Amino acid sequence: MSLGDWSCPIPKVDLPTITMSHGAGGGLSAKLFDEVFSKHYPSKELLDRNDSAVIDWDSRYRLAISTDAFVVEPRKFPGGDIGSLSVYGTINDLAVQGAEPIALTIAWVLEEGFPLSELHELASSVGKAAADCSVRVLAGDTKVVQRGRGHGCYITTTGLGRVPKGLELGSSRICLGDCILLSGPIGEHGMAIMSQRSGLDFDPVLKSDCAPLHRMAMSLASQVSGLKLMRDPTRGGISAVLNELAASSQKCFEIQEASVPIRSQVKSACELLGIDPWVVANEGKLLAIVSCDGVQAALDIMRKHPEGSQACQIGQVTGRYPRSVIAETLYGTKRIVAMPSGELLPRIC
Amino acid sequence: MSLGDWSCPIPKVDLPTITMSHGAGGGLSAKLFDEVFSKHYPSKELLDRNDSAVIDWDSRYRLAISTDAFVVEPRKFPGGDIGSLSVYGTINDLAVQGAEPIALTIAWVLEEGFPLSELHELASSVGKAAADCSVRVLAGDTKVVQRGRGHGCYITTTGLGRVPKGLELGSSRICLGDCILLSGPIGEHGMAIMSQRSGLDFDPVLKSDCAPLHRMAMSLASQVSGLKLMRDPTRGGISAVLNELAASSQKCFEIQEASVPIRSQVKSACELLGIDPWVVANEGKLLAIVSCDGVQAALDIMRKHPEGSQACQIGQVTGRYPRSVIAETLYGTKRIVAMPSGELLPRIC
Repeated sequence: MSLGDWSCPIPKVDLPTITMSHGAGGGLSAKLFDEVFSKHYPSKELLDRNDSAVIDWDSRYRLAISTDAFVVEPRKFPGGDIGSLSVYGTINDLAVQGAEPIALTIAWVLEEGFPLSELHELASSVGKAAADCSVRVLAGDTKVVQRGRGHGCYITTTGLGRVPKGLELGSSRICLGDCILLSGPIGEHGMAIMSQRSGLDFDPVLKSDCAPLHRMAMSLASQVSGLKLMRDPTRGGISAVLNELAASSQKCFEIQEASVPIRSQVKSACELLGIDPWVVANEGKLLAIVSCDGVQAALDIMRKHPEGSQACQIGQVTGRYPRSVIAETLYGTKRIVAMPSGELLPRIC
Repeated sequence: MSLGDWSCPIPKVDLPTITMSHGAGGGLSAKLFDEVFSKHYPSKELLDRNDSAVIDWDSRYRLAISTDAFVVEPRKFPGGDIGSLSVYGTINDLAVQGAEPIALTIAWVLEEGFPLSELHELASSVGKAAADCSVRVLAGDTKVVQRGRGHGCYITTTGLGRVPKGLELGSSRICLGDCILLSGPIGEHGMAIMSQRSGLDFDPVLKSDCAPLHRMAMSLASQVSGLKLMRDPTRGGISAVLNELAASSQKCFEIQEASVPIRSQVKSACELLGIDPWVVANEGKLLAIVSCDGVQAALDIMRKHPEGSQACQIGQVTGRYPRSVIAETLYGTKRIVAMPSGELLPRIC
């Protein structure tokens, strides 16, 4: 197999306007970041492209901060709603940096005509999710836009957490031979949204995995010395995260397809809709890179938490094709796992 | 004058849906906060209703955090754009707590079809404003929504700052006899937006006062021991801020109308459009409550900064009509200054 001719399928023409694909978490999202945002307000932390930025603050802790806008459609889905998602999504961005979440801020952009009863429901969902994570909502803002200039409601949350000094996680720590662990079956959030949108009725209903990961992540960070890095594979699924890690670590990520857990129902839905489950968003899964001698300890810890009960090793870091993700298929052949591009599932989170 | 019959003109019926007035910063915004958000995720800091929340963090500093969504229309206006406004607006919310701004996060909700060239301009404006305030943009997020489900772009920024321990500002510190200071002429941001929207051509053009206040505010906080509280009168103008302070301090805020600076051009525009300049948004003005013995020092400091060159005293805190704002008019009579309600200028910030 030659990788010489392979290149990331981003359109080479400069699109003059924003397309849905710019928000899909794949190649065009990265291009937008590279060519616009990182150009105009570069900071070391932003350029590090971690899920949250970590800065020095005091003698014992570093401060982690992360922000996310949520525009998911539909706003309510089996397993959650835009309210709980906007809390857990931001908590998880802190969690994968090994941070203990402390506080949240929340800003609402409401469309004129939005039902107050639904606002109550969503605010209640925010409150319950925040309480579940023991974080306080410290500050908020609300704006209203005219009918047809929004879509019900959009939420932006920003999370603050603290990271014990001495905990160093990052792609620069990834070494050849490190193992790739996944906390459970993939594709559940994306397929729950997708089946809602397409009106597909599954029995039992496809449920989002939307859940907070900080308890599991904090246990891993404090107890597994060989932990190199954690990520939650949201937009763009495990394909996007693995490709980002392969690029930033300049290593090859080799995955055994048979090891990647997928619930049969999600697999069927993906086949029915012609979607690769590896590019489908998750909202309650953790991907961890751990040195070989830490694998058993890490898996033991993950499996103690309900959100990691099906944790397993899915692959290894090698030097075979640097900056690439390779999957060993069920038939023993190998395939390149490309960075997802284009619009797969807009407004998934 | 009897205040017995006076009540805040909030509609008594429960509106079943969100209206533009819920986002206007007046009575309905407060109602939404009281009946929805503060019910479902109450925290001490949120209930304090300060422009930013301040929490204990380490031994030397407290941490200030503030979030704001920006939906201003038009996005570009004389004196600024949604990019600079989204930086300065959040910086100012930190500044009025006496915080030194440290960092920002930014989340964009872009509408499909938004021109990339304008995104470049706005991101550049964000970068310049952040550099002007010596804050770094630590983290960001971008989402895209379909055509007709947004309006070009909405921005949410969250700011982090640090407050020296020992600095205590708040409405509980306000005493009878305290003086009310204002850093300069009012109504400029709102009237700049309004004249753009209504197509009114003024010569010279009406410019927004959009500017960062942290330098002036930090000087006041560190050098004026009698400083009780600072606020930036944005949505709802000085009428809204004064009414909030009168309510939270349970005191009477008496203002001399003749002392409130307004540029003649803004005054003319307000008269032409039938708008009370006291309810018009500012984006670069500071209102400070200072004990009498600190007034001269405070005014001297404010006037050293370009954004405070026209600082003056506009009134005093008394016990005459607790929880009310009273203006002494140019004719020597008195009038009640009501909390603005309803939709004056939607999407002003």
